[in-house]
Amino acid sequence: MSPANWPVDEARLWADAMALGDLTEPDVPYTRRAFSEMFLKGRDYLTARFQTAGLETSIDAAGNLIGRRAGSAPELGTLIIGSHSDTVPGGGRFDGVAGVLAGLEVARALKDAGITLRHNLEIVDCLAEEMSVFGLSCIGSRGMTGHLEPDMLAYQNPEGEDLAAGIARMGGDVTRLPQVVRDDICAYLELHIEQGRVLESAGEDIGVVTNIVGIMRLEITVTGLADHAGTTPMDLRRDALSGAVEVVAAIRDKAREIAGRGEGYFVATTGEFDIQPGAANVVPREVRLVIDARAENPALMQEFLRFAQNDLASLVSAQGAEFSELKVLSDSAHTECDDALQEQLAQAAEGLGLKWRRMASGAGHDAVFFSRIAPAAMIFIPCRAGRSHTPEEWTEPGQLSAGAAVLFETIRQLDAAEGAAAAEITANKEE
Amino acid sequence: MSPANWPVDEARLWADAMALGDLTEPDVPYTRRAFSEMFLKGRDYLTARFQTAGLETSIDAAGNLIGRRAGSAPELGTLIIGSHSDTVPGGGRFDGVAGVLAGLEVARALKDAGITLRHNLEIVDCLAEEMSVFGLSCIGSRGMTGHLEPDMLAYQNPEGEDLAAGIARMGGDVTRLPQVVRDDICAYLELHIEQGRVLESAGEDIGVVTNIVGIMRLEITVTGLADHAGTTPMDLRRDALSGAVEVVAAIRDKAREIAGRGEGYFVATTGEFDIQPGAANVVPREVRLVIDARAENPALMQEFLRFAQNDLASLVSAQGAEFSELKVLSDSAHTECDDALQEQLAQAAEGLGLKWRRMASGAGHDAVFFSRIAPAAMIFIPCRAGRSHTPEEWTEPGQLSAGAAVLFETIRQLDAAEGAAAAEITANKEE
Repeated sequence: MSPANWPVDEARLWADAMALGDLTEPDVPYTRRAFSEMFLKGRDYLTARFQTAGLETSIDAAGNLIGRRAGSAPELGTLIIGSHSDTVPGGGRFDGVAGVLAGLEVARALKDAGITLRHNLEIVDCLAEEMSVFGLSCIGSRGMTGHLEPDMLAYQNPEGEDLAAGIARMGGDVTRLPQVVRDDICAYLELHIEQGRVLESAGEDIGVVTNIVGIMRLEITVTGLADHAGTTPMDLRRDALSGAVEVVAAIRDKAREIAGRGEGYFVATTGEFDIQPGAANVVPREVRLVIDARAENPALMQEFLRFAQNDLASLVSAQGAEFSELKVLSDSAHTECDDALQEQLAQAAEGLGLKWRRMASGAGHDAVFFSRIAPAAMIFIPCRAGRSHTPEEWTEPGQLSAGAAVLFETIRQLDAAEGAAAAEITANKEE
Repeated sequence: MSPANWPVDEARLWADAMALGDLTEPDVPYTRRAFSEMFLKGRDYLTARFQTAGLETSIDAAGNLIGRRAGSAPELGTLIIGSHSDTVPGGGRFDGVAGVLAGLEVARALKDAGITLRHNLEIVDCLAEEMSVFGLSCIGSRGMTGHLEPDMLAYQNPEGEDLAAGIARMGGDVTRLPQVVRDDICAYLELHIEQGRVLESAGEDIGVVTNIVGIMRLEITVTGLADHAGTTPMDLRRDALSGAVEVVAAIRDKAREIAGRGEGYFVATTGEFDIQPGAANVVPREVRLVIDARAENPALMQEFLRFAQNDLASLVSAQGAEFSELKVLSDSAHTECDDALQEQLAQAAEGLGLKWRRMASGAGHDAVFFSRIAPAAMIFIPCRAGRSHTPEEWTEPGQLSAGAAVLFETIRQLDAAEGAAAAEITANKEE
C-alpha cells in the first residue's frame, strides 16, 4: 500500500487540524486551555465534525467529549481512540489534537468505505490532559477510569471555582462519576506527536510505544552563608551556588552514564534552579533545584535515587556549602503498553510500508490511566526538531495521515480478531 | 595606654549608635535610606549632637551634613573625618553610622580635653553612600570632590523626582556645586566596619586599609535549546544550565587560584544566576549570570578578564551549549590609600596597644572619591561573623571606641606635624 491509496483522507484530516489551530486565544497562539471559552469553541467544532462523520456525540460525567458508532455486535465491547483537544498556554497545534482528529478520520474513513465494525467505536476527546487551572492534569481520563478522587474535585482554580463546578461547566456531572467508570473497553489507542527528535533523527514514520516512563521529581536544597562578595576572602566562604553547580554536573553525568548503558530509556534534567538572594554583590546563601528523572526501567530509577541520596552531599560539602535537603516531590510508576496491541500497531505500520521502531514515551499521556483498566497502547508520529508546547510545533500532513492510517488498519484487525480483544480485557482485569 | 584611659568615651559613643539605630522604618529594621523622612530624622539627631559637641553645622551644596570646628591656624587647611548615616533597606546599625559617630566622638573628646587644633576639623555625614533610589551611590562624596556629573543630577527616583530636587529636599543646592568643590582638605579619614571576617578570624582590633579594590562586573549568557525534559534523550540535548555550571565552577577555581598566590587581594563571585524558562519539565534554554570580581592589583584583574574571555567558551561548548555573550557591565579602578596617613594610623593603633594589620578593602567607600582630591585613608573595625547589610550586623562597644581612639590619636599627630599635612596635599595635587 502506498500513500495514494491509504484508507484515510490526508487533506480532510489536515484541514481539521488547521481549523482547530485557528480557534486560539488571539494574543497567545496556540492556546485553547481546558475550562476556557475558547476550549468550548474547539469542542463545538469537534462536535459538529463528529456528527458529520456519523458519530453520536455526548459528554460523559467527567467532561469527556465522546463520538460513538455502535457496532453490529456491541456485546463484544468498545474500541476507543482517544487523546485531548486542550493545549498548554502558548502551545502548538498538534499536541493532543492530532490524536483526536486521527480518531475522527478513522471513523470517517470507515463510514466512507461502508464498513460496519462488530465492536463499538468511540473517539474520545479527554478533558484537560494538560496541567489545568485546577492544578491537575488528565482529568477526563482519570474520571473515565475511576481515578478522579473525591479530594481532587475540591481543587480550586485561581477564581475560587472548584473542579466539580468546572467539570459541570464543560457539560459533565461529577455526581454520576461512580456509575460511568467504564468496563466495556477492549482496547484504547492513542496517537500523539513524539515531542522529541528520535523519529526525525532516524528518518522514521511511526514509534510504537513500549511503555510510558515513570517520572520522579526531586527537590534539593543547598545552603551556604550570604556574605559580602567584596569583603569575604575566597577561603572563608560558604557559597551555596558553588556547591549547587557540583550537584547539577554530577546529576547530568550520572544520567548520561545510565542512559548510555542500553538498559532502557533514562533522562534526568535540572530545570528549576533558584538562587537566593541573587544579588551580584552577595555570596549566594541558598540554591533550590528541582530534578525531573524519567525511566522505563524501575531499577534504573532506583539506582538514580540512591545516587542522589548518597553521593551528592560530599560534593557539596567539599565546596564549603551544605547539602541540606533532598525531598521526593512526586514519584509515578512507569506504564507498560499492552503487548498484543503493540504487535497489532507494528504489523499495521509494516503493512503500510512505513518505517517504524519501538520506543519508550518520555512524557505522560491519557493512555496511562486507560492502561489501568484496559489494554492500551500508543503510536508516535514525528514532529519537527522535536519542538512541542510552542507555536513552532509542527508535523507534516503526510506524517499525520500515516499515523491515522496505522490506527485505521489496527482497528480493522482488532475488530476482525473474533472476540480476542474482549477476552484480553477480561484476562487483564483478572491479573 | 589601656581602654580605661583612652581619650574617647565608650558609653557616650555607644549610646549614640543605639539611639540612631532606633530611628528606623518600624517594619524593616534597620532602615534609614537616603532621601527618606526617616533619614532626615537621623540627620536632625546628628545635627543636635554635633551642636552639643560645639560643632558649627551646615549642609553643603551636595547635601552633606558638616559639623565644623575652626582651627587656630585655619590657613593650614582642614582635617575631615567622614562616613555616612544612610543605610540599605533592612540593613544594620553600624555600616556608615560607626564612622560618623566615631568622628563626632573625636570632636567631643577634643572639646572635653580642652584641645584646640591648629587645623580646622570637620565631621562629615556624606549623603547617600549606599545605592540610592536615584540609582546612584556616594552622592555626597562625589559632590564634595567634583565628581557629581551634570547628567547624574537628572537621574530620577521611582516617583519621577530628579536627583537635583532630591538633594534640595536634603538641604543642598546643586546650582552651587561648582563653587563648593573642596581644595582645603589636608586629610580625609574614615572608620568603617570591616564587613568581612578577616579581623575577627585573626583576633585583631584594627585594619589599616592599604587600598580599596577595583570592581569589575561581567555578564555572561549561555544559550541552549528549550527541549521537552521527558522526550529529549541526553545525547540530543543542548542544555544551557549544563554549560553554565561549568562556567561557575571554572570562575570559582580560577579565583581561588589567583587569591591563593599571594600577589594581592582577589575575589570573584557569581551572585546573579537566572535560568530560563525555569520549569521542571523543560531543558534550560538560557542562563544569564553576573560575576563580580575585585582586585587590589590591576594585573590580577586583567588576568581574570582574559581567562573569562578566552577559557570559558570551550567548557560550555563541550556540554553542547553555546557561550553566546560576555559583557563588561562596569569596571572601576582600585584606589590606593595615602601612605603617610596609613603610617600615622598604624602608629596610633600601635601606641594604643591594639592589634592591627594592613589589609585591602573589598568594598567601595566614600574615601574613594576623597582620595581623588586629597590624601585619604581608612581603618576597619571588626564586625561579628562578618555580617553586614543585615539587622544582625554587630560590633562591640569596645571595638568601636578603639577605632575612635585611633582616629583621635591620628588627628592629634596630623595636627602636630607642623604644616606637614598641608605640604602633602599640595604635593598630591601636583602629581
